[in-house]
Amino acid sequence: MRIANVDGRLTLLTPDGPVDVATASGGRFGPDPQAAYESFDDLRRWAQDQGGPAAGAETGIGDPRLLGPVAPAPRQVFAIGVNYRDHAAEGGLGTLPDEPMVFTKYPSSFSGPVTDVPLPAGSVDWEVELVAIVSRTARGVDSSRAWEYVAGLTVGQDLSERQLQLRGPLPQFSMAKSHPGFSPTGPVLVTPDELPNPDDLEIGCAVNGEQVQKARTTSMIFPVPQLVAYLSTIVTLYPGDVIFTGTPSGVGAGRTPQRFLRPGDELSSWVEGIGELKQRFV
Amino acid sequence: MRIANVDGRLTLLTPDGPVDVATASGGRFGPDPQAAYESFDDLRRWAQDQGGPAAGAETGIGDPRLLGPVAPAPRQVFAIGVNYRDHAAEGGLGTLPDEPMVFTKYPSSFSGPVTDVPLPAGSVDWEVELVAIVSRTARGVDSSRAWEYVAGLTVGQDLSERQLQLRGPLPQFSMAKSHPGFSPTGPVLVTPDELPNPDDLEIGCAVNGEQVQKARTTSMIFPVPQLVAYLSTIVTLYPGDVIFTGTPSGVGAGRTPQRFLRPGDELSSWVEGIGELKQRFV
Repeated sequence: MRIANVDGRLTLLTPDGPVDVATASGGRFGPDPQAAYESFDDLRRWAQDQGGPAAGAETGIGDPRLLGPVAPAPRQVFAIGVNYRDHAAEGGLGTLPDEPMVFTKYPSSFSGPVTDVPLPAGSVDWEVELVAIVSRTARGVDSSRAWEYVAGLTVGQDLSERQLQLRGPLPQFSMAKSHPGFSPTGPVLVTPDELPNPDDLEIGCAVNGEQVQKARTTSMIFPVPQLVAYLSTIVTLYPGDVIFTGTPSGVGAGRTPQRFLRPGDELSSWVEGIGELKQRFV
Repeated sequence: MRIANVDGRLTLLTPDGPVDVATASGGRFGPDPQAAYESFDDLRRWAQDQGGPAAGAETGIGDPRLLGPVAPAPRQVFAIGVNYRDHAAEGGLGTLPDEPMVFTKYPSSFSGPVTDVPLPAGSVDWEVELVAIVSRTARGVDSSRAWEYVAGLTVGQDLSERQLQLRGPLPQFSMAKSHPGFSPTGPVLVTPDELPNPDDLEIGCAVNGEQVQKARTTSMIFPVPQLVAYLSTIVTLYPGDVIFTGTPSGVGAGRTPQRFLRPGDELSSWVEGIGELKQRFV
């Protein structure tokens, strides 16, 4: 199943095009895309009767009405700080974490997939990420069953203002990554069964057409199931909770010389089989 | 105005006792305590006609139906890491922060004011805090007007599992402070005008009757108005957002020898003019 948030309405992507779920289901499901996660298994069963998956439907990227898959306000947002070995190395982190490093991105920073992002003062960097959305209340989940708690995957950008993030006395991630527009997600949510292997996806981003990040999600230190399992040992995960799973190498701060985003830059971010985000900086 | 969340119903405390707001207002205000922040100015005007403030009403502490002032799920939670000079010193932080250090406490860790808290593995420590709740959407607010964006104040405990918080390679606060039950708040929300000086309140906590923390909020590095102003330069604050304003010295990790919470311990936390939290550890 592939679903999208079109102007605040839950929309199913089918081979025949987009279908408004509230209308097509005769009100069995409401129009609120975020509420869909509360009855996600029912939605999937219903969707299977509506014409099956939309093969290749990496769709909607041109539609300015597209919002994020969890909008307007995700309940809990978990973001993983260092989750690819090569990114840990470029960040100068000598030791690999032996458990996920977790911060948040505040809901007020969330946006849809195609946006103009105002640049605050400082050094704004890109971080393309695979984003997992939770489908069921999860507590103490074993990693072998953790995919059952994932509604699906989408693309995210974890935009980061490096000066605030890294100046001391203690590093602070959550604020530096929560300026308005710093958390675009979308364009669609893809359930794991739609992907040949949801643990092995190409991920990348390009600035003004020049590819700057490219990796496979098999390079994660903690893959999606391990993240769900780990988080659920400490907190309770709720339907619609958002997990930004970390970025591979190739960020601007890791380049020589360093390269940060400037007004007019265009950033394109993608994950194989899911779709693409487009941000323009102003 | 003093309001409380009694079993999920917004309740006004008056000299004549607690009043159910939805009933007394004839439906002008709904019963949802969290929704109250969306029309907080209206609620205050209505409350002024209901008999005025409940002098000394540090009430309800014995009522097991009391929930937190922002329940079931605060939208954005900001917690300040090092905001009292003496606590910075006991934490071994050589440099004082020149801007607030911000992390989150996840909504799934929130509870009402009187609870039993299961102790996870590790070293669980106390941190009594003054908690401010936002009343109006705030962006780029000047500190001289910041109190206008604060609905009121309540008491919070920022319970913290020190091993996870401090083991490396990077310190991580948000998860270590988000185990279930680690964010009790309450018992009531008190509007700033009810306090002789909302910038100068005694705050403290006791373990099994022994006082372990005691300070005045005038010792904050960044007082409430500065926190609201600072946060609103980076994120957009929403009605009902929660700000844990940091803890003074006297935490268990700062004692010699260190003292952490054990099963059976009883923790009492208070702020002058607001009320008291009671946690028992199991």
